[in-house]
Amino acid sequence: MMTIDLNCDMGESFGVYKLGYDEEAMPYVTSINVACGFHASDPGNMLKTVRLAKKYDVAVGAHPSFPDLVGFGRRVMAASLEEIKADVMYQIGALWAFCKAEGVKLQHVKPHGALYNVAEKDMATAVAIAESIKAVDPELYMVCLGNSAMTEAAKKVGVKYVEEAFADRAYTSQGTLVPRRQAGAVIHDVNAVADRVLSMVKNKTVTAIDGTVVSIAAQTICVHGDTPGAVEMIKAIRAKLEQENIILKAFGR
Amino acid sequence: MMTIDLNCDMGESFGVYKLGYDEEAMPYVTSINVACGFHASDPGNMLKTVRLAKKYDVAVGAHPSFPDLVGFGRRVMAASLEEIKADVMYQIGALWAFCKAEGVKLQHVKPHGALYNVAEKDMATAVAIAESIKAVDPELYMVCLGNSAMTEAAKKVGVKYVEEAFADRAYTSQGTLVPRRQAGAVIHDVNAVADRVLSMVKNKTVTAIDGTVVSIAAQTICVHGDTPGAVEMIKAIRAKLEQENIILKAFGR
Amino acid sequence: MMTIDLNCDMGESFGVYKLGYDEEAMPYVTSINVACGFHASDPGNMLKTVRLAKKYDVAVGAHPSFPDLVGFGRRVMAASLEEIKADVMYQIGALWAFCKAEGVKLQHVKPHGALYNVAEKDMATAVAIAESIKAVDPELYMVCLGNSAMTEAAKKVGVKYVEEAFADRAYTSQGTLVPRRQAGAVIHDVNAVADRVLSMVKNKTVTAIDGTVVSIAAQTICVHGDTPGAVEMIKAIRAKLEQENIILKAFGR
Amino acid sequence: MMTIDLNCDMGESFGVYKLGYDEEAMPYVTSINVACGFHASDPGNMLKTVRLAKKYDVAVGAHPSFPDLVGFGRRVMAASLEEIKADVMYQIGALWAFCKAEGVKLQHVKPHGALYNVAEKDMATAVAIAESIKAVDPELYMVCLGNSAMTEAAKKVGVKYVEEAFADRAYTSQGTLVPRRQAGAVIHDVNAVADRVLSMVKNKTVTAIDGTVVSIAAQTICVHGDTPGAVEMIKAIRAKLEQENIILKAFGR
Repeated sequence: MMTIDLNCDMGESFGVYKLGYDEEAMPYVTSINVACGFHASDPGNMLKTVRLAKKYDVAVGAHPSFPDLVGFGRRVMAASLEEIKADVMYQIGALWAFCKAEGVKLQHVKPHGALYNVAEKDMATAVAIAESIKAVDPELYMVCLGNSAMTEAAKKVGVKYVEEAFADRAYTSQGTLVPRRQAGAVIHDVNAVADRVLSMVKNKTVTAIDGTVVSIAAQTICVHGDTPGAVEMIKAIRAKLEQENIILKAFGR
Repeated sequence: MMTIDLNCDMGESFGVYKLGYDEEAMPYVTSINVACGFHASDPGNMLKTVRLAKKYDVAVGAHPSFPDLVGFGRRVMAASLEEIKADVMYQIGALWAFCKAEGVKLQHVKPHGALYNVAEKDMATAVAIAESIKAVDPELYMVCLGNSAMTEAAKKVGVKYVEEAFADRAYTSQGTLVPRRQAGAVIHDVNAVADRVLSMVKNKTVTAIDGTVVSIAAQTICVHGDTPGAVEMIKAIRAKLEQENIILKAFGR
Repeated sequence: MMTIDLNCDMGESFGVYKLGYDEEAMPYVTSINVACGFHASDPGNMLKTVRLAKKYDVAVGAHPSFPDLVGFGRRVMAASLEEIKADVMYQIGALWAFCKAEGVKLQHVKPHGALYNVAEKDMATAVAIAESIKAVDPELYMVCLGNSAMTEAAKKVGVKYVEEAFADRAYTSQGTLVPRRQAGAVIHDVNAVADRVLSMVKNKTVTAIDGTVVSIAAQTICVHGDTPGAVEMIKAIRAKLEQENIILKAFGR
Repeated sequence: MMTIDLNCDMGESFGVYKLGYDEEAMPYVTSINVACGFHASDPGNMLKTVRLAKKYDVAVGAHPSFPDLVGFGRRVMAASLEEIKADVMYQIGALWAFCKAEGVKLQHVKPHGALYNVAEKDMATAVAIAESIKAVDPELYMVCLGNSAMTEAAKKVGVKYVEEAFADRAYTSQGTLVPRRQAGAVIHDVNAVADRVLSMVKNKTVTAIDGTVVSIAAQTICVHGDTPGAVEMIKAIRAKLEQENIILKAFGR
């Protein structure tokens, strides 16, 4: 039996500010990446998000970021490796407390935004993240972009990891993501996206932007929940996979 | 054999800003209360502080606060009980991560500043804090002001707790602290303070500001480490206690 | 000719977080209160809001708050009067820079949320706010709740001021606001609200929650722009007033 | 008569945290760069600093930074030009309010830390800063590193500017600063520094790290006030200059 995980960023509301369709998307995903207060969220929202995940039996992971609320963690910061390690540990711990209080096992850590973008290319940063995850809890998985420095770092450090692919992003013929600023980088057609995810899971391939077929390894597929249309897309992906008897389940279970 | 714990606030530096004499005071105390980023400290400083405690085999506790860096957590905020609970959990968890990474057991939680002042009087706040501590880890102790709403709350919630007395603070004949703004509220004479602590530990009494002798129950004595003079005071207290064969050790050990 | 001002909170978005219907509501109000980064907004949003006000020739005021982004400035903080004064000056200045850059005159200052609630009752706080406004620019108006400590403070300090009434809030027979937690505190019927505003402006009276008619003095009426329904309400108020030949214009012009 | 300005960073304390020897250094400098809350300082500290400058009749400038309190503004952030412009305006305005309240004219703007380091090399950033200064107040000077993109930007935008040299930093034979990480980058000998400053002012030259003599143009010399030794150095520089009948005075006066 084939299985796959669908992971989705959640808990990105902040104070009175609401972001994302967590309630609507939660029933259709298998793992979530919870903002930990550095790029989004606050303690109350984190607790609420963990409770919602528990209700739908969805696996919970931390989504640590550079400390940049105004910029939503999307701006690269020249933080030192020591700063990154301490920041990542702090955020994992903060989320852990809510999981502990709710009797939910913390499954994974996936860097957010600019920290993710740096880590996928810069080995030292990826290693720093991997080391901080392992130091806090060696049972935690690191979610890595497939074929990136993150995977290399996870292997080197000896932390558990899974590789992820992006449902709605175009790939180059080298198997890397087409940069967002490039035309065609994001695929909006629901059926096309569902078909691509099916191919990623079943054939372990995806059609690159230049038409070539590239191989891809992924134990989890990243989907989005921040627009109403995104929720429809998750449902379509899920339906397509279930139709092919692929079992959706969190990678750590 | 009589034993007592000396607890001290530490890890209150922030970024480039240095506060307190952590390195100097650490060898002479048995438990520390580590700032968790809401009134002071940052991830890097927290990690450094946990490492320093580990080096001197000092027990570590969390020192959660209202979210108020500018005011050093000294300004009462009308946060809801739900907000207080989530804020306390978040801060405990953040510190837990550094303890976990360093192989140090988290021993206790002691509210900081304005949150402490509210909790010692307001039962609902004290209960909220006690509940959040127990929810995150029922092995954690809550450090309570003796004879306060905090002790009542700890009993009611069923969280482990110890009561604390203050080495250098004057007491009323009712066994409560003389408010800081009142003359004579803080005792500066090193020998007088050491003698008072000895009496608190040995006789379980202290001489109140009006000369009456009041009974006091304390498993831990709060000392300060934020001035060079404070370190001398800790040493004097310690010497006086050891001279009387009282064993200094963390309450959770 | 009778004139009245309609004031509305704006610029309360923060980073990626959107709040309020500024674009939709701007054409229908005459003055706005711009968040200054302490309870909401950020420099980019403030600049954008000033530009939008300029486009519709709407008068701009500062909306200073306690420093509490997570709580949206709705939590009372025990800040000292010196802290409040410095915080208010800082926020006025920050907004002034954007007004200066866009060639827009800064018209007024209206405290936000918990700071407003404290100032309407506590004379010392209201005086502190009035003094900081006057110190930064004696041409600025202070927007005061009618019949409150704020008005008293403005008179005492000698700062220019206007009194405001709330379009959709119920009043007691003493002319004070019915607290929000009380049933009937907020009036949702669009026509009823429009009629009340007309009465406030034309007759200088409003029907209190107990049916008595109380006198009210207001040079500006506070309306809301944070829901789509709120925008419809502003339009209805405006239509009703214009129908009676009342001229809508900023109080400082 | 030859004149020169000595500029110094001040107002970098934050809440309870004290940084720098502002009281000690203020009598000996002619211009100060005041932190505006983004890398250091808070409203209360800014007000206090402006009052201190007023007492000693020292000219006041804004010292805007990337928003990074934890990192003291020393970490480069990938902020957009629009974000930088809005951040700079906000910080200038905030300080302006305190100057206005104290009847002190705001003289200049000097970027801090990482923002300065980016601006001295990146023309687009330097232009963004120059534009925001000019937009807020065309009377303000921009303090630029001599021979850098900042000077070019100031000329291009048409904002008033002065060039600065560093009293205690080594220079390359190209007239640029020797990077801090390089041996010999900072000169600690008080007499050597005083002699260098005299040469910068009198001969408009400085001896580079390789022994060559390079020309340097500076209307202001940057000195430091963050250590007790630094204050002694300022005094020595001042004495040396006065001995040669060079008049110390703020560049904008």
